[in-house]
Amino acid sequence: MSSNTPLRGIFTPNIVPLDTRGEINEPELRKYVDWLIERGVHGLYPNGSTGEFTRFTVEERRRIIEIIADQTRGRVPILAGAAEANTRETIKACEHYHSLGVRAVAIVSPFYFKLTPAGVYAYFKEIADNSPIDVTLYNIPMFASPIDVPTVQRLAEECPRVAAIKDSSGDLPHMMRMIAAVKPVRPDFAFLTGWDAALMPMLLLGCDGGTNATSGVVPEITRKLYDLTMNGQLDESRELQYRLLKLFDAMLFSAEFPEGFRAALRLRGFTTGIGRQPQSLVQQKELETLSDQLQCSLAAEGFTDQPVGGCPVGDSVDSDHVARIVQTVVGELKKRGMA
Amino acid sequence: MSSNTPLRGIFTPNIVPLDTRGEINEPELRKYVDWLIERGVHGLYPNGSTGEFTRFTVEERRRIIEIIADQTRGRVPILAGAAEANTRETIKACEHYHSLGVRAVAIVSPFYFKLTPAGVYAYFKEIADNSPIDVTLYNIPMFASPIDVPTVQRLAEECPRVAAIKDSSGDLPHMMRMIAAVKPVRPDFAFLTGWDAALMPMLLLGCDGGTNATSGVVPEITRKLYDLTMNGQLDESRELQYRLLKLFDAMLFSAEFPEGFRAALRLRGFTTGIGRQPQSLVQQKELETLSDQLQCSLAAEGFTDQPVGGCPVGDSVDSDHVARIVQTVVGELKKRGMA
Amino acid sequence: MSSNTPLRGIFTPNIVPLDTRGEINEPELRKYVDWLIERGVHGLYPNGSTGEFTRFTVEERRRIIEIIADQTRGRVPILAGAAEANTRETIKACEHYHSLGVRAVAIVSPFYFKLTPAGVYAYFKEIADNSPIDVTLYNIPMFASPIDVPTVQRLAEECPRVAAIKDSSGDLPHMMRMIAAVKPVRPDFAFLTGWDAALMPMLLLGCDGGTNATSGVVPEITRKLYDLTMNGQLDESRELQYRLLKLFDAMLFSAEFPEGFRAALRLRGFTTGIGRQPQSLVQQKELETLSDQLQCSLAAEGFTDQPVGGCPVGDSVDSDHVARIVQTVVGELKKRGMA
Amino acid sequence: MSSNTPLRGIFTPNIVPLDTRGEINEPELRKYVDWLIERGVHGLYPNGSTGEFTRFTVEERRRIIEIIADQTRGRVPILAGAAEANTRETIKACEHYHSLGVRAVAIVSPFYFKLTPAGVYAYFKEIADNSPIDVTLYNIPMFASPIDVPTVQRLAEECPRVAAIKDSSGDLPHMMRMIAAVKPVRPDFAFLTGWDAALMPMLLLGCDGGTNATSGVVPEITRKLYDLTMNGQLDESRELQYRLLKLFDAMLFSAEFPEGFRAALRLRGFTTGIGRQPQSLVQQKELETLSDQLQCSLAAEGFTDQPVGGCPVGDSVDSDHVARIVQTVVGELKKRGMA
Repeated sequence: MSSNTPLRGIFTPNIVPLDTRGEINEPELRKYVDWLIERGVHGLYPNGSTGEFTRFTVEERRRIIEIIADQTRGRVPILAGAAEANTRETIKACEHYHSLGVRAVAIVSPFYFKLTPAGVYAYFKEIADNSPIDVTLYNIPMFASPIDVPTVQRLAEECPRVAAIKDSSGDLPHMMRMIAAVKPVRPDFAFLTGWDAALMPMLLLGCDGGTNATSGVVPEITRKLYDLTMNGQLDESRELQYRLLKLFDAMLFSAEFPEGFRAALRLRGFTTGIGRQPQSLVQQKELETLSDQLQCSLAAEGFTDQPVGGCPVGDSVDSDHVARIVQTVVGELKKRGMA
Repeated sequence: MSSNTPLRGIFTPNIVPLDTRGEINEPELRKYVDWLIERGVHGLYPNGSTGEFTRFTVEERRRIIEIIADQTRGRVPILAGAAEANTRETIKACEHYHSLGVRAVAIVSPFYFKLTPAGVYAYFKEIADNSPIDVTLYNIPMFASPIDVPTVQRLAEECPRVAAIKDSSGDLPHMMRMIAAVKPVRPDFAFLTGWDAALMPMLLLGCDGGTNATSGVVPEITRKLYDLTMNGQLDESRELQYRLLKLFDAMLFSAEFPEGFRAALRLRGFTTGIGRQPQSLVQQKELETLSDQLQCSLAAEGFTDQPVGGCPVGDSVDSDHVARIVQTVVGELKKRGMA
Repeated sequence: MSSNTPLRGIFTPNIVPLDTRGEINEPELRKYVDWLIERGVHGLYPNGSTGEFTRFTVEERRRIIEIIADQTRGRVPILAGAAEANTRETIKACEHYHSLGVRAVAIVSPFYFKLTPAGVYAYFKEIADNSPIDVTLYNIPMFASPIDVPTVQRLAEECPRVAAIKDSSGDLPHMMRMIAAVKPVRPDFAFLTGWDAALMPMLLLGCDGGTNATSGVVPEITRKLYDLTMNGQLDESRELQYRLLKLFDAMLFSAEFPEGFRAALRLRGFTTGIGRQPQSLVQQKELETLSDQLQCSLAAEGFTDQPVGGCPVGDSVDSDHVARIVQTVVGELKKRGMA
Repeated sequence: MSSNTPLRGIFTPNIVPLDTRGEINEPELRKYVDWLIERGVHGLYPNGSTGEFTRFTVEERRRIIEIIADQTRGRVPILAGAAEANTRETIKACEHYHSLGVRAVAIVSPFYFKLTPAGVYAYFKEIADNSPIDVTLYNIPMFASPIDVPTVQRLAEECPRVAAIKDSSGDLPHMMRMIAAVKPVRPDFAFLTGWDAALMPMLLLGCDGGTNATSGVVPEITRKLYDLTMNGQLDESRELQYRLLKLFDAMLFSAEFPEGFRAALRLRGFTTGIGRQPQSLVQQKELETLSDQLQCSLAAEGFTDQPVGGCPVGDSVDSDHVARIVQTVVGELKKRGMA
């Protein structure tokens, strides 16, 4: 993979399949990589939030990248999540992933401690000055210290290695402010959105692509939405964006993230295993209900059969139920500083 | 104005010009109404947040509507802000504004006290059941109790009088969720966005129009953005949306709202008077600096001369300065439950 | 009432009883005033948040103060809520309430619009420079623009008329920071807490008193808690503070504020009428359940009989139920910028 | 250390001294342990937030506990931070620390991902059911998923191993609600506060002690505050709480946490090294200014000499400066879901 392949299109943040002992399920992960590439995603994005990077050990995170790089064999570019405990460890990860031929790393802003813009700047500056590989800033203010526009602009100006930002805030004017601030000084800089609910308008306003969790479950739809939008087929892409929003909301808000995506991936035929975050009995019950609803949604899109009990006529998802849940969870997220 | 004129296009939330004694400047307000209509806004929206409805007495709020209805003489529809101290007083206002021939009222969700969805529902239900005129729900979560999607849906289903929502959250997926929930049951329901920063994508995803504060200062641009977007001229509308974003940010975030809009309107030739919220000396100084920057922006758009000291070459607004301020203020708003 | 009576002790923010037509129930209000004074509250605080000042018209707000001032006849000092639509109207209210002999006014920080510290300062400065009567700053960040410590300090230094702050944030270190900043320059300045849940520790750390909604329902307990704490009877006051917390939580969080307090006051024998904010059917049902629980709590304290169906043995309130609700509502409040 | 030593008193969350290569400075850490114990802290709390546990590798976290356990030699109980990437790794850490003889572990609620109460419950339940050692829940909602009152109560009831909670929210009514919910069913359960600003009132209302960062810098003061409060010497303890608040605010809010504490510890004579989070040039300058102010504060308390340039007469800290910063940072924290 040439080091100046543009970061463009849909990069899939993959779930990591686990086996019955809770270990990385390597054969299934390899199968999943092939499946994704065959369905047209433009790139892979392991060790993102969907990939639950914080729940793996440092050795496991490395192994995930090694497996995926080996299996991909250059067919698509890889954006490798590389955040470790501190800048020294992170730079080591950058070096290792560089040696594996990944296209770039993605580094989430410092989390747990909530840093000021000055601290966020200093953190990325030290990494960018020492990384042998392009760095994508990863802004996800619901989980980590926010990266504000002036910080992005300054890093883009001072650090040639900082080549892109992945922004999961879903805040469209924020994305536009970044594009307006950075593009004039760094025309090569790439802007990726991590918020599937706004993929179409983000692309229309200048984003280069997305790292979208839905593309790990319904890559056919996410890819098609990208193509339709880039082709200017507005009516078709609008209609598809509304359908994707429904799937996204159902998977994102109906269970503790990323359990909804894991459940949906199972419906696509993968052995995903049980996640590492324990689920209470109530949560397990809810997940079963969700799984049936997701199966109806996926069946309506032609990706699976209907569940044994059948699906409600008309709307495949119980929209009211999901809408209530979305409100509650969006409220929760807002409470905790997001959205 | 026929009662079933669709609520569509750009409705201007007007600043109220004051005279030297701080009273409503009726001649200037009439002149302003004509000026806006001549520049193509589709409707007027007095007693909105830009109109600082909370800072006028109940008698003044009524007089503002009376003046504007009289001066408009049916040339464009009027959406009249009608929220009063309680439902009884609000219903009285609805009746009065109905007798003046306004197209619909807009009623902000209860504020000061923050209500639950059940309380928000009960409030609008009682008003809608007793209003002789169409009601627009006004959702502005940075200032008032949020109106969530299920509440909008329920009110749309149960209350024929509830005919539209004006949403100033700027949250695109939220708008899409409302459209998806309400359009199937109420195809006539109108969706207006109050967040100029996202006007183009909001329209592209199905909004019927906007109540946009920029249209009170640069109606030519806001109207043109609407036309270009509705015509599907994406490249032109994208470029204009970026320019409008810059103006919007400068006016919105550089001073206590709506002082930036008042200062800009002065540059368009109106005697706006001094606002009712006192400004500290520091704030007054900042407003002068802002005014020069706004003059450069408006001059770059061809609406005014440059200020005496001239304007910086290249970018008309000091973008870095504005960007820093935007970050700070957006942070403040987020802290208080918005954005 | 001498103008230099210290603002000290428990000031009751009263509910306004309404009659069957929804109008102010003057006889009941007068009876309520006597009842409160007889039970030992140190002062009255009409037109506060508990008094739902925003839901009354300007004429009604004035009449409430007139009735209370007349009925009180100088037996206790009155702190009159005086915030109106703008500084001019507010200053007129200050003048009127001064003529009625109230001890001081309380003015809530600007709401709806969220002001910066500079704007909050300018607002209070203009009022304080023109008020003929002592001004109490009213900080309630869950509902209105926050008043930060440097702003309180500056107003205390520059404005002799600014004589006190009523803080309803419940944030103990915040209160300590204010006391540390203001007491050295204004030893006469009074600090009142509006958060009953922390009354005892607030008093222990230097507060002069409280404006506590519980004192409008169980004045015997709130007053006793004040006395025990000021006497240094720590064990007794701690035990009472825990009991008051339970009552406070039940009344505050189990219904849309201040419906829980209205329901409890009804149990003390007053005709409170139906509040002006409409309640949905679900809310009305919940209020009935709450009322039974409150009756058990009040019965346990000896203030009422048990409800017809009896009370659970042991804990009089269904603590788990209340705890869940408290969590939910505290979450909601936090989401909206409070607590 | 007997396994049923009550968790009571002041547990110091220690900074980890680093050497010039950024590695753990073992001799200095051992010296620091002795210094703390000699100054009377009741216990040690390594791998807390002050100890920046997230910025060390898993091997380093283990080594820190090993060094401290070895150096302490049972003189005081150790509360060892034991959160790792997932429950399996965390349980392994519990087993290892148990073998080292620590009194209990403290496990922070899941962070990065923000979990619902059901998820938080399931997480702690799995750990508690498999830990050979007492578990302290660690609630720090500004950084991690909040642990709400019903969850604490349920874990206390179901898991004998869950023996305490350390709460760093500083929310006094929240602490009281926990005590009221848990004490009746688990009289042995310990409540520790991590918010130095409210240590005295927390103790007065029933807390058993604190894990207070100030005790790592001025153990003499924090310990004395504990003793005075437990002895009921209210006037003395109130005065000391105000002094400690000033120190706490200066160290906490004037620099990116925990840099202020690191700077202050240097002034007490320890070689702390440079923290692992890079600091921008502006931040480094600010830290120098802060250091001078802290030196004046510590000199005023008799712990150091004044800095070369002397100190301002009267107040040793530039209070206004600190107050402004506190406001800004508290605002930031609130924005992100804390305080």
